[in-house]
Amino acid sequence: MPTPTVREKPTPEDAVRAANHRFFAAFEALSLADMEAIWAHDDDIQCVQPGWDLLRGWDDIRERWKRVFRNLKRVRVAISGNWVRVEGSVGWVACTARITTAFAEGFDEAIVQATNIFVLRDGHWLLVAHHASLLPATLRATVQ
Amino acid sequence: MPTPTVREKPTPEDAVRAANHRFFAAFEALSLADMEAIWAHDDDIQCVQPGWDLLRGWDDIRERWKRVFRNLKRVRVAISGNWVRVEGSVGWVACTARITTAFAEGFDEAIVQATNIFVLRDGHWLLVAHHASLLPATLRATVQ
Repeated sequence: MPTPTVREKPTPEDAVRAANHRFFAAFEALSLADMEAIWAHDDDIQCVQPGWDLLRGWDDIRERWKRVFRNLKRVRVAISGNWVRVEGSVGWVACTARITTAFAEGFDEAIVQATNIFVLRDGHWLLVAHHASLLPATLRATVQ
Repeated sequence: MPTPTVREKPTPEDAVRAANHRFFAAFEALSLADMEAIWAHDDDIQCVQPGWDLLRGWDDIRERWKRVFRNLKRVRVAISGNWVRVEGSVGWVACTARITTAFAEGFDEAIVQATNIFVLRDGHWLLVAHHASLLPATLRATVQ
């Protein structure tokens, strides 16, 4: 694709931020294919989600997303506080995600803090660790 | 210090595992000085703990540990599932920590999943991100 205008080359931080955005976009799209594209398919990748034990390896993580997507009708994610740091071929992001999910029976809202780690492989930033946990705002909202 | 016996040089993974151990040892020792030695003192380091919003920067993180240590009498941490990965000058660990804490009024036990990210600086692996969240086992134990 030709470069349409004179433009600064994206920084590694921009590229990691874009990869982080693609991860949450895959979640919103309930797309296993998009999840497959954003994760590294290694045996030692990690996934921690609220209410679940650690998952390791692409096979188990893929299976989890498949089940999550099966149970959801619609998801909307609003990201804020997108802090990115890159050192060499590793980048990590801390961000807050307000996740609204619709099930068959109703809907739910959660505010989670996520730490996502990406590695650069063949020019692509791939997700190797996702750790998400509920923030106090969610707990307060649940109590009210 | 002379090498006492012929021994394999520790791998980067060993060194990151040792740094991760020092972090939890500093917590057990309730030692702010040990915490200062294990964390990078950057403005963009991150800390997420159960029930708290994201903290960024050494000043705020140091203050948090100071308060935590002030409220605790004794802490014991048992680590398991210590998964380590290193790419270049970045290493990260996924581990499970069973944390028993004694307060003035009694004691508490929590099982947390932690993701810790370290960067190599001047030969030392320094902590730049700590994300800890409660595992289902803790929630079950609380309900029972």
